[in-house]
Amino acid sequence: MTDTGISFDLADLADRVAASVNPQRYLRLQRALATFGGREDGGVERQALTEVETRARQWLMAQVKGHRYRWLYDDAGNLFLRRDGREGQLAPVMTGSHMDTQPVGGWLDGAYGVIAGLEVMLALDDAGLDTRFPLELAIWNNEEGSRFGPGAMGSSAFADPSRLPAFMSSVDADGVLFSDALQRMFDAVQTAGHVPLGRPVSAYIEAHIEQGPVLEAAGSTLGVVTGIQGVRWFEVLVTGSSAHAGTTPLDVRQDAVLAAATLLRRIADAALALGDDRLRVTSGRFEVKSPSINTVADRVLFTIDLRHPEEAVLDAFEAQIRSIVGSGAAPCAGEVSCIMRKPPTPFHPHVVALVEQASNRSGELYQRIGSGAFHDAMYLADRCPTGMLFVPSIKGVSHNVAEDTKEEHLVAGVRVLAATLYSLAR
Amino acid sequence: MTDTGISFDLADLADRVAASVNPQRYLRLQRALATFGGREDGGVERQALTEVETRARQWLMAQVKGHRYRWLYDDAGNLFLRRDGREGQLAPVMTGSHMDTQPVGGWLDGAYGVIAGLEVMLALDDAGLDTRFPLELAIWNNEEGSRFGPGAMGSSAFADPSRLPAFMSSVDADGVLFSDALQRMFDAVQTAGHVPLGRPVSAYIEAHIEQGPVLEAAGSTLGVVTGIQGVRWFEVLVTGSSAHAGTTPLDVRQDAVLAAATLLRRIADAALALGDDRLRVTSGRFEVKSPSINTVADRVLFTIDLRHPEEAVLDAFEAQIRSIVGSGAAPCAGEVSCIMRKPPTPFHPHVVALVEQASNRSGELYQRIGSGAFHDAMYLADRCPTGMLFVPSIKGVSHNVAEDTKEEHLVAGVRVLAATLYSLAR
Repeated sequence: MTDTGISFDLADLADRVAASVNPQRYLRLQRALATFGGREDGGVERQALTEVETRARQWLMAQVKGHRYRWLYDDAGNLFLRRDGREGQLAPVMTGSHMDTQPVGGWLDGAYGVIAGLEVMLALDDAGLDTRFPLELAIWNNEEGSRFGPGAMGSSAFADPSRLPAFMSSVDADGVLFSDALQRMFDAVQTAGHVPLGRPVSAYIEAHIEQGPVLEAAGSTLGVVTGIQGVRWFEVLVTGSSAHAGTTPLDVRQDAVLAAATLLRRIADAALALGDDRLRVTSGRFEVKSPSINTVADRVLFTIDLRHPEEAVLDAFEAQIRSIVGSGAAPCAGEVSCIMRKPPTPFHPHVVALVEQASNRSGELYQRIGSGAFHDAMYLADRCPTGMLFVPSIKGVSHNVAEDTKEEHLVAGVRVLAATLYSLAR
Repeated sequence: MTDTGISFDLADLADRVAASVNPQRYLRLQRALATFGGREDGGVERQALTEVETRARQWLMAQVKGHRYRWLYDDAGNLFLRRDGREGQLAPVMTGSHMDTQPVGGWLDGAYGVIAGLEVMLALDDAGLDTRFPLELAIWNNEEGSRFGPGAMGSSAFADPSRLPAFMSSVDADGVLFSDALQRMFDAVQTAGHVPLGRPVSAYIEAHIEQGPVLEAAGSTLGVVTGIQGVRWFEVLVTGSSAHAGTTPLDVRQDAVLAAATLLRRIADAALALGDDRLRVTSGRFEVKSPSINTVADRVLFTIDLRHPEEAVLDAFEAQIRSIVGSGAAPCAGEVSCIMRKPPTPFHPHVVALVEQASNRSGELYQRIGSGAFHDAMYLADRCPTGMLFVPSIKGVSHNVAEDTKEEHLVAGVRVLAATLYSLAR
């Protein structure tokens, strides 16, 4: 990747690539991909390595022709479209995302970053420009993790091939092995070449919908993503004592539901008191063991999903959770277990600066933003300078049939992706 | 029943009956009944109309002999032991309870009132006393309602025979009809005579374990029960909006779990603020619809079990619940539905006074107490002057293998039941 600033000449060329983006062609391709697994209500059902997802891969491979291009596979099922560079020995500059969906997802999500990257290639062709670095569009395998767990299998195995053997024995709800589903997909796309896992990458930039309401609320067309926040998952077990709802006075109860509700409210109050709009605290599960309308419950388990871009803030809030649960569950007992811990991923300052510069030159309203969700870019960031670009999600909705983004925002994102990629690969 | 005070002579005779209670015989009978369905851990499995419950009925019928006694059945499966009185045309004075258990219950519960009543009959025999009113020991069918719903089938059909037809089509978890299980039990106890439903009763008094911690905490041996509190069951549905736990800032969420926890805490605070130790408020169910650790939940349903001996207090607290839910669920919406409403049952002041007098003369520590749980006496109170007597539950535990009461408390209860019954039937 470049490690100097962008010259005015380069910026002019980058603007030319951005201007070569063809909105009609891009939107046609984006809508065409959505027909694979498309539902009448606008949703898309295209889980990883299903027959329909394989047909979508075949369709995608048919969209690009010419001596400059090659389609390649690796052992994790990732698919790459390589556009040759002037210096063939250089590691590629990559863009991309995933095209598998949740069991019922929307038409954009990862598919946006895939088709946006494809359109950039075609815009470079139209502009008659080549690049020093090879360019690659990556379609990462099984990002959602809804059919085969865990998620982001493709990008995480790409970043660290030692992860792959464990993924091979993952089984879907119908008992199908990941390795068997992978082989069936390979058999169906035999025209692609093969590349090894673990090969070097010069830089990675991923376009994605925001999946949150921040850009829309601020009126921004583009989000310059500064990093992916860290996540910690906790289970809080509250243990009281079961008792008859009619015979047991309030003051002698050890009511696990009431104690858990109290803890949950205090944890929320502590989060709000920090006034940090990057902090996320969510309790999405709250389970009463042996629920009964006329029994004081003895055990409740609730979860906490804690997120923030800074490890120090995660540490401090985890300490606060432990302190609140330790003292606040009385007369019940509370116990906190951390069941998942993923540190923050700050993106590379130079890639972030390039995205910001391209956004600025596009004339669109933009802002810096952290990513609340995981993305394939999180694993690529372990391997190379990495960044992301967001476009707004209408009402913040994603993983849902109502997921949508205004067409002009989608196109603005493709143009900025084009300019950024050209600046990286020039 | 008597409608004047107890004379000193009568009190002396009542004391004589109490003194004739035989602790060894009573405890032997109580323990013998517990062997029907008894478990090694001290618990008892003896659900209504099971084979083991039928064998327990046969055993019980074999414990009493003599020309003075008759065993009788009615169409609801209630079993009665009638001890003739001097004036055969008078409606009987009754005592009793039930001997079915929860799927896994304790050795006392309703079985205490059954064996206590039996011992009173035998003590009257030993004291050589007859009574003006016939005396009857009632074993009410299917009080628990755990095998065939609803509970208190026998006593409620006794109080109002129009209820019986609906009960006949109740089905247990194995698909067995209540009417078929009832017929099998009748076939097994053919030696009993038949009495119609709807016959008059002069008075009813039921001994039972407290099933709560109040007597033990106060150091009382006996509880003079003043009535059964009213109950109202509510469902509260909280509706928010689902959102991504990572991407959605705290201040734009409509988090149904947090809103429900907040309501629950406020309702509990309102209950505690009243400082009324007879008020019971319990949320035993709290269900997140579509629970997911990393999703802000859009729907939560929780229940409220509200109890108090006074209808006016129930009205006032229901209004408070509706007000808290109406205003306090924001930014989510809250909706309260009442799914069950049972008014308080005050016991007859004269029966309560007789139990109190007998308790006082026993020399034991006693107190007035409300019943937090339902009992067969609740339905008998619709038909005749009714009262109850409680003995302490160790640690307040019932419906559990650990259910227990000190032997001396059990015996003290039988003596006071004996004195009260004699005062009623003299």
